[in-house]
Amino acid sequence: MLIVADENIPLLDSFFGDIGEIRRVSGRSMTAGEVRAADILLVRSVTRVNRELLEGSRVRFVGTTTIGTDHVDRDWLEQQGIRFSAAPGCNANSVAEYVLSVLSLYAEKRGLIDWSRLSVGIVGVGNVGGELARKLERLGFDVRLCDPPRADLGEEGQEFVSLEEAMKCDVVTLHTPLTRESNHPTFHMVGEQELDSLGAGQLLINAGRGGVIDSSALLARLGKSNVPTVVLDVWEQEPRIHPELVDQVWLATPHIAGHSLEGKVQGTEMIYQALSQFLGLPVRKKAGQFLPEPALSKISFTSSAEEEDAIRIALRACYDPRRDDIRLRNAMSGSVEERGAAFDRLRRDYPVRRECSSLKIQLKGTSKSLQDSFRAIGFKLKI
Amino acid sequence: MLIVADENIPLLDSFFGDIGEIRRVSGRSMTAGEVRAADILLVRSVTRVNRELLEGSRVRFVGTTTIGTDHVDRDWLEQQGIRFSAAPGCNANSVAEYVLSVLSLYAEKRGLIDWSRLSVGIVGVGNVGGELARKLERLGFDVRLCDPPRADLGEEGQEFVSLEEAMKCDVVTLHTPLTRESNHPTFHMVGEQELDSLGAGQLLINAGRGGVIDSSALLARLGKSNVPTVVLDVWEQEPRIHPELVDQVWLATPHIAGHSLEGKVQGTEMIYQALSQFLGLPVRKKAGQFLPEPALSKISFTSSAEEEDAIRIALRACYDPRRDDIRLRNAMSGSVEERGAAFDRLRRDYPVRRECSSLKIQLKGTSKSLQDSFRAIGFKLKI
Ligand SMILES: NC(=O)c1ccc[n+]([C@@H]2O[C@H](COP(=O)([O-])OP(=O)(O)OC[C@H]3O[C@@H](n4cnc5c(N)ncnc54)[C@H](O)[C@@H]3O)[C@@H](O)[C@H]2O)c1
Ligand SMILES: NC(=O)c1ccc[n+]([C@@H]2O[C@H](COP(=O)([O-])OP(=O)(O)OC[C@H]3O[C@@H](n4cnc5c(N)ncnc54)[C@H](O)[C@@H]3O)[C@@H](O)[C@H]2O)c1
Repeated sequence: MLIVADENIPLLDSFFGDIGEIRRVSGRSMTAGEVRAADILLVRSVTRVNRELLEGSRVRFVGTTTIGTDHVDRDWLEQQGIRFSAAPGCNANSVAEYVLSVLSLYAEKRGLIDWSRLSVGIVGVGNVGGELARKLERLGFDVRLCDPPRADLGEEGQEFVSLEEAMKCDVVTLHTPLTRESNHPTFHMVGEQELDSLGAGQLLINAGRGGVIDSSALLARLGKSNVPTVVLDVWEQEPRIHPELVDQVWLATPHIAGHSLEGKVQGTEMIYQALSQFLGLPVRKKAGQFLPEPALSKISFTSSAEEEDAIRIALRACYDPRRDDIRLRNAMSGSVEERGAAFDRLRRDYPVRRECSSLKIQLKGTSKSLQDSFRAIGFKLKI
Repeated sequence: MLIVADENIPLLDSFFGDIGEIRRVSGRSMTAGEVRAADILLVRSVTRVNRELLEGSRVRFVGTTTIGTDHVDRDWLEQQGIRFSAAPGCNANSVAEYVLSVLSLYAEKRGLIDWSRLSVGIVGVGNVGGELARKLERLGFDVRLCDPPRADLGEEGQEFVSLEEAMKCDVVTLHTPLTRESNHPTFHMVGEQELDSLGAGQLLINAGRGGVIDSSALLARLGKSNVPTVVLDVWEQEPRIHPELVDQVWLATPHIAGHSLEGKVQGTEMIYQALSQFLGLPVRKKAGQFLPEPALSKISFTSSAEEEDAIRIALRACYDPRRDDIRLRNAMSGSVEERGAAFDRLRRDYPVRRECSSLKIQLKGTSKSLQDSFRAIGFKLKI
């Protein structure tokens, strides 16, 4: 069995080495010729998967290790009876940790000792928003969920608020896809009116899709008074993003909220699982067994540790969004083309980032509440 | 023997409990009446020690647990045959660590991977500047020393540069006292001309005394183009500092560079040593034995740790100047009086800050160079 795969998919050998022969090719420049003899095709979002690439090939299974599927012509694959599988939610935890780190910085900026006193409106409660909500609720935050498509389904025991209600929270964080044609389109969903409703005591985060916020309206809003604090990980017209917007927002990162190593490896794992099922093979491997040792392995606190200090130190030691913010700002010089290329490069050459689960936290004689908080975030505890 | 002491001196009982009876009083409002029966007086910088306070008292020894002695009329004490002792250098390591943390942030801001590629001009090479120079040299930085009073002494084997030369370094850090009458007065030593010589690729730090930089000239400079990055811990007219200057500089902290717990405790220890000597008592106690367990006790890295990442994480976990910067900025609202009171409050109610020596660094299979760097900074190593 021949597996043709994007060379940048992590752990190809570990997961697929005993399923078939693996041929690595460049995802960006993959050709029909390279794919023709393959039985299985594994891609990331940089490869267009369509009739042009696959017609006349032996491919029976296509897997993308990403959550997005815009690069794949799913209708054509279905017509051809080619099984397709993606990795929804693989990086949800990575994005949730990004938001937690931002919240920790924001609480500090506001001079708040207890970050959980912030109310948080989560707009878009799917894989990412749902994971974030679970963590925040365990940490004792006041969380409001806004997801009209889910609200329409009338799920039992779930309460949803309107976008207008969500926008009244101390923190509003966007985790919707970009849609134009749905019942609840999200394109420019946060426009002039919504932005005017926000004030200086509020934080707006977008780690969903850039076009969900109307950037021109946002720029105009940031030029007025009583401005909210804004954190953007996603942008309109990526990679040719608006440098003035970078300049005006508090934290600006290059669409990397989901870029943890764990997230990437989980993407491979999910495709491995789907392929194993398709081939009728047992699922024996787990991502955890292949993850390399993290550079930072353990932080130890004593009984004199204050909850907020300990969490802040551990979260930031694991991941501090200000590093990515500085990198993006430093990349915002030069022509539009140079800036666009720099944005792409920042994403492509992203340093290894590990999730909180990679870091052991040793707590000696600390409070039950501190232990619960560390667990809620996702750290490994050693008591 | 009666010891009257400022109630805010740490570890009074531990150090002096078996030397005499300790009576704690408020340092700010200490009266002649409170001091009259004392044999020994222990103060900090908030108490004016002069004829008014001491005339007619039994005091034979005055100790200040601070490096400064401006609050003490030393001539009068000498005339009266009262022994006086201060604690020069007690917080030098604290200030040196402050500067190292700033350098780590600055290297990141500049996109430099190897911070030691920065050249550093140290102006004022006494207790603080000397300690800083030792650390930086061990870390491989290119260090230039500027200290005309010491240069005048013509010490063997020490090379000094002019202020003009020092100001050509990537980083210029000021650690001189404030003098007006000396051979090399420092009042407004860094004025329009010196500031004009600095450019956008340079960092200016003042953690000596505010008046060494002419603040009006600095404000004017920051309004021009090609501006240097500026970090101020000390200010003209403290505590009524210039809010616009706070606004314009990169990092602004409320004269706390020396505020580590170790620094304070060492101040007490130095006075304990001087008093023991004065009384002919053995010096048996050491600060180390009384220091409380730190909240953060250990950070463990594995062989995959990169030197710059590991050092950055450890330094910032120990102390991140951005927290103090945020606190000062948040305090800069309200009237002149309110701002002044807030500045004082930030110093008085300063949270416990521990030095790098309080933090064990566990390195498993890392490079010799990483171990050397951690040692040079002052961390406790466990290999
Ligand atoms: N920044 C990053 O690095 C990063 C990483 C992962 C995901 N994302 C993006 O985040 C978004 C969410 O990802 P996900 O995996 O949770 O997707 P998901 O499909 O699991 O969840 C999206 C949710 O948004 C809801 N939604 C749709 N329209 C809405 C509207 N008008 N108002 C409110 N909610 C609405 C949907 O009902 C759904 O519950 C996606 O756009 C994804 O591309 C970004
Ligand atoms: N920011 C803080 O929290 C903090 C903490 C400790 C000390 N300080 C201040 O830092 C300064 C240095 O402290 P220290 O303990 O090292 O003092 P120190 O007396 O040990 O050293 C001062 C040095 O400055 C030199 N000097 C004097 N005039 C000079 C000039 N014109 N140019 C260059 N060098 C000159 C002296 O020769 C001496 O070597 C003091 O003003 C002190 O108050 C600030």
